[in-house]
Amino acid sequence: MLCLGIFSQISLIFAENMISSEPIDEKVEDKVKKNHIIDSVNMLIFLFLLILTTVTIWAFKYRRIRFLHETGLAMIYGLVVGAIIRYASPGIARTHFVTTLPQYENFTRNDPPDGIWLSIRDRSNQTSRNTTFEYSYVGQLYEETEDKDLEAKATFDPEVFFQVLLPPIIFHAGYSLKRRHFFRNLGSIFLYAFLGTTVSCFVVGSLMFAFVQMMPYLPFSFNDCLFFGAIISATDPVTILAVFSDLKVDVDVYALIFGESVLNDAVAIVLAGSVEKFMMRHDGAIETYSNTGSGPGFEVTAFFKSVGNFLGIFCGAFAIGSSMGCITALLTKFTKIKEYPLLETALFFLMSYSTFLMAEAAELTGIVAVLFCGITQAHYTYNNLSVESRGRTKQLFELLNFLSENFIFSYIGVSVFTFSNHHWEVGFIMLAIVAIVIGRAMNVYPLSFLLNLGRKQKITYAYQHMMMFAGLRGAIAYALAIRNTASVARQTMLSTTVIIVLFTVIVLGGCTTPMLSWLKIRVGVEDEQEMHHFTAVRTPSPSSPHVASHVAPLSHEARAQEKARLVRVWYNFDYKFLKPLLTNSRPLLTETLPTFCMPLARLLTTDEQANTSFQNADDEELILDDGSHGVAAAAVHSSEVNNSASSDARPPDRVQAPAADDAFTGDLGLGDHVMQARVRLPGPLGDSV
Amino acid sequence: MLCLGIFSQISLIFAENMISSEPIDEKVEDKVKKNHIIDSVNMLIFLFLLILTTVTIWAFKYRRIRFLHETGLAMIYGLVVGAIIRYASPGIARTHFVTTLPQYENFTRNDPPDGIWLSIRDRSNQTSRNTTFEYSYVGQLYEETEDKDLEAKATFDPEVFFQVLLPPIIFHAGYSLKRRHFFRNLGSIFLYAFLGTTVSCFVVGSLMFAFVQMMPYLPFSFNDCLFFGAIISATDPVTILAVFSDLKVDVDVYALIFGESVLNDAVAIVLAGSVEKFMMRHDGAIETYSNTGSGPGFEVTAFFKSVGNFLGIFCGAFAIGSSMGCITALLTKFTKIKEYPLLETALFFLMSYSTFLMAEAAELTGIVAVLFCGITQAHYTYNNLSVESRGRTKQLFELLNFLSENFIFSYIGVSVFTFSNHHWEVGFIMLAIVAIVIGRAMNVYPLSFLLNLGRKQKITYAYQHMMMFAGLRGAIAYALAIRNTASVARQTMLSTTVIIVLFTVIVLGGCTTPMLSWLKIRVGVEDEQEMHHFTAVRTPSPSSPHVASHVAPLSHEARAQEKARLVRVWYNFDYKFLKPLLTNSRPLLTETLPTFCMPLARLLTTDEQANTSFQNADDEELILDDGSHGVAAAAVHSSEVNNSASSDARPPDRVQAPAADDAFTGDLGLGDHVMQARVRLPGPLGDSV
Repeated sequence: MLCLGIFSQISLIFAENMISSEPIDEKVEDKVKKNHIIDSVNMLIFLFLLILTTVTIWAFKYRRIRFLHETGLAMIYGLVVGAIIRYASPGIARTHFVTTLPQYENFTRNDPPDGIWLSIRDRSNQTSRNTTFEYSYVGQLYEETEDKDLEAKATFDPEVFFQVLLPPIIFHAGYSLKRRHFFRNLGSIFLYAFLGTTVSCFVVGSLMFAFVQMMPYLPFSFNDCLFFGAIISATDPVTILAVFSDLKVDVDVYALIFGESVLNDAVAIVLAGSVEKFMMRHDGAIETYSNTGSGPGFEVTAFFKSVGNFLGIFCGAFAIGSSMGCITALLTKFTKIKEYPLLETALFFLMSYSTFLMAEAAELTGIVAVLFCGITQAHYTYNNLSVESRGRTKQLFELLNFLSENFIFSYIGVSVFTFSNHHWEVGFIMLAIVAIVIGRAMNVYPLSFLLNLGRKQKITYAYQHMMMFAGLRGAIAYALAIRNTASVARQTMLSTTVIIVLFTVIVLGGCTTPMLSWLKIRVGVEDEQEMHHFTAVRTPSPSSPHVASHVAPLSHEARAQEKARLVRVWYNFDYKFLKPLLTNSRPLLTETLPTFCMPLARLLTTDEQANTSFQNADDEELILDDGSHGVAAAAVHSSEVNNSASSDARPPDRVQAPAADDAFTGDLGLGDHVMQARVRLPGPLGDSV
Repeated sequence: MLCLGIFSQISLIFAENMISSEPIDEKVEDKVKKNHIIDSVNMLIFLFLLILTTVTIWAFKYRRIRFLHETGLAMIYGLVVGAIIRYASPGIARTHFVTTLPQYENFTRNDPPDGIWLSIRDRSNQTSRNTTFEYSYVGQLYEETEDKDLEAKATFDPEVFFQVLLPPIIFHAGYSLKRRHFFRNLGSIFLYAFLGTTVSCFVVGSLMFAFVQMMPYLPFSFNDCLFFGAIISATDPVTILAVFSDLKVDVDVYALIFGESVLNDAVAIVLAGSVEKFMMRHDGAIETYSNTGSGPGFEVTAFFKSVGNFLGIFCGAFAIGSSMGCITALLTKFTKIKEYPLLETALFFLMSYSTFLMAEAAELTGIVAVLFCGITQAHYTYNNLSVESRGRTKQLFELLNFLSENFIFSYIGVSVFTFSNHHWEVGFIMLAIVAIVIGRAMNVYPLSFLLNLGRKQKITYAYQHMMMFAGLRGAIAYALAIRNTASVARQTMLSTTVIIVLFTVIVLGGCTTPMLSWLKIRVGVEDEQEMHHFTAVRTPSPSSPHVASHVAPLSHEARAQEKARLVRVWYNFDYKFLKPLLTNSRPLLTETLPTFCMPLARLLTTDEQANTSFQNADDEELILDDGSHGVAAAAVHSSEVNNSASSDARPPDRVQAPAADDAFTGDLGLGDHVMQARVRLPGPLGDSV
């Protein structure tokens, strides 16, 4: 109602503008005001959608309704509001003026100018003064005939998704990653994420290319199809995992699906970028790709260049992300900024967000950087933070994640009706759905078969079906698709992506609970994922039972396996050097570094760290990891190590760690359960034992 | 270094663009990429500034350096970086194309089109296809000759200030308002804020108009001068109060200065808007104001129209702000959303931000709305929140406030060098400084004299000098000035404002501590402003001693005074009806409403509220206000009222409140200390007894 009121007010303002012939300065003031009101109303629409969604989510949780998840809800509300905006609101008429760049203008060939200065003669003014207005570059206009009126209605610059909304989502995924379960299944997750997503991308791309041969009116090259395969291969962690989290689904299927979908977002982004670059390099010569029936196909060198490009982007982003995390850890370790939790939280936030921007500015991918930054922050910096800042950072990113997510899904809903660069192609959409189902199957089943050859704890068929089913598409796919809608091919991709997102999130997301019970996957598995030190400030609520039940060790068949070598080397290095350097944990660098490095080691050890032996047991309770201590101690065979920082606060007698043979049964290449009882990585969510 | 690296990369990209003659589609992709990198680098510059500022603030706090405050610091860093960007970075060349709106175009008279579609013939393409690009309206271009290259360097749309950065600052001010001290001095604060700011506006305006007569080359009308008076009359609460807060300055001078500066931001915004509107209505007829030597002066009807406009905007914004606060209170009272602190916090945040946008969309002032929304949220909603959400909301807005504030001050510093619409006029700046000193004096001293006629607790000369000295200008003045830089007059105002902000924040802000000791104003006054229920999650730190010293009752001469009638009526109403309706506090509506309203009263009373007698004593400890209970109980002479919700958790025997005569000695018109011992309004910061 209020919206409509404001709309009618806007249309009044406009009507007023249209008939008056006031002096030009007033027109300018009006325009400023008008744009301000439009901005406010646009934003307001989304805020109301979010408020509505938030309240409904509560109502659903309260009544334990699970057939529709919050993201699905946000989208449905978005659809309704989008339809209202499109059909019931008075259109906002936007005027435009068409001109041609004169041939004699001194511009570089084919480079559109960054701005246009338009002179208008003030016809109400006797002096006939000219007034100049500035116009800035927006982008290529594909269809001039299309009704551009909608542009002004509740649409945003797609860059907003990448610069503002995605980073907190991905950072939160990294920061709240249940690293213990994640690392336990690391090999499997990597295989699914890297190889699986690539397989899915090529399968979908090839199938779509075959399909578009039947639709010759669609201007799709093979590379366009491949690009579509890349953007649509990013599965979304949001919906399915919220359901999993509510139901406390078996931790392993949780870890597999979460790990895969977090990493494959990053993989899909890099893949899409690589395909685009490949396309540019390859198609650029004479003809533009968007208008040619089919591209010139693949060439081997260009392909390997793209693979190199892919690896370069991924590694570069990883390097930026983890080093920014380490810098934050150092800053929080060597300053006493923890005395001021506000400053500490601000620093943490700023460092994390600048990681994203640095990677973007360096033409890498900010999403990958911010994911690894989140993991590093959780692994190192989190230990240095004050107790208050731990709570603040966790809560802050939780909130940002919630708002961003629901905003994106609302926007997807609204944009179906309001975004003007859509190109609906029913045949394409139907075939795309077929293609992604096949692509997902080609990802899950063959790779699971391969992995089961090596895994002791097999990935059961039920798990495989669940992974197959969990291939929802969401925010990343949409954000990638909306980034560029310059050609018909791209517009078709966007529209198809929107439908696929709507369909998978609402239908598959809603059927998750029945699917779980049909597949007989364990639910109600209590896990030690609650943050116990928040119990103090949390009211008792039915949703957060604070029963800290330890996970029962699943398997104790502890045999040393040589294939775990890489894991051992890494944990050893992390425990002996990185953790002492970056956090205030034991052992000290003075104990682990060779003697000739003593001065350096002493410099890098803080007083707090040196005196940490007793008080940390309750100060940093639940954070320092007795598990990995055990492992590392076993690894270095160092009976010197004082194990007093362990969370169960047992007296700091010298603990003789179990024999190394018992400790390393984990597997980087092939996920394994055996490590679980030993390796516990501390973190904001997953590591309170 | 990294910045420079990225800059050189950018210039490489540009150089590449300039010489190549690739097909137009690639140009478009390049442009997207280029703009993305520029955006990232711009943002990155400010993030680095903020990181630098945060770390330096810590260092200053750690070494107890007070000669320079954080906001001054942010500005100085900003200046340095701005200078580097201007003089040391390779310029970002931006091309533009100049055209004229043809007379035959079918546009409304003098209304610049919203967009331009520019066709460019792709000269690398044999088919000679035209490609169309879209350009969007930016604003009026005042000086075509000026070097527009700088525009691309680290500048933002001024709307960002109003839509994104100011709301959290003002909301935080309202939410964390020490309402007890604020309300105790309400009369004085209102007089300073409303009358004082208006006096200052007119004094500065008139003086400047007199001064510009000596500078006939400056195109300033009287209305322009008045507008300048309005924007420069907003004093800034940030810097001085951070120092006050650190030093624990006497609560009354704190309340006076804080209250005045928070409210006068709002007053100045509304004043500036009214002057602008007046100007438009008045000057619009034949000549445009920006080019006329002097406006046609004041007319009585137009003046009263402006006053009416002022009152309308203020009251409208107040209504929106407080009603949105009440709606949030109702939502949190009647749903059990508090079981999900994340949802609750999200709802709280969304409702508060939408308040701002609603007011803006309704052409009122969002700042005033969000201020009163903050006060209402603190007064009602805060009581309904779960303990965790209380912490979350407080910490969230504290962080947003910190980041926004430092961002604005960094930006002020950077923009001195990078913003292109500056017009430096040394004479004007010098005279403006003289004028604001006189304006401030005409505000503080005469009004203090008037107030002292009525106040029992006089505003001493030391306090008056301190208030005079505390007239720093900051974010609001800058944001108002940068909003419109279309004319030379406006540009001169912006440049003058920047210098005044720099000068007052760095010099006056830095001299606050010496000034306090020179004026012999009490410091180190312990106050009960800490949130005690955060103690649980806060590490002991030197900056936040949790010594909960109760304020010694300053005066118990409790005489009923008739002038306090309004206060009594309000508190009575608040206690009997609003609080029971909007929060879960006692008494119940079933006890206070007349009998014929019983069904309604029962409907509006939650079970939780009805059963609140015992458990709330520790559940909502420190929140429910024993003080105001005492007052209100006295007021209604209701010995039925169960006073068990009081924070000292005394057994819920029936408390016979003190006689009404003792309770109301506060004064809405003339601030008084007597009320202090009785009236305690609960709130996020100020009311844990």
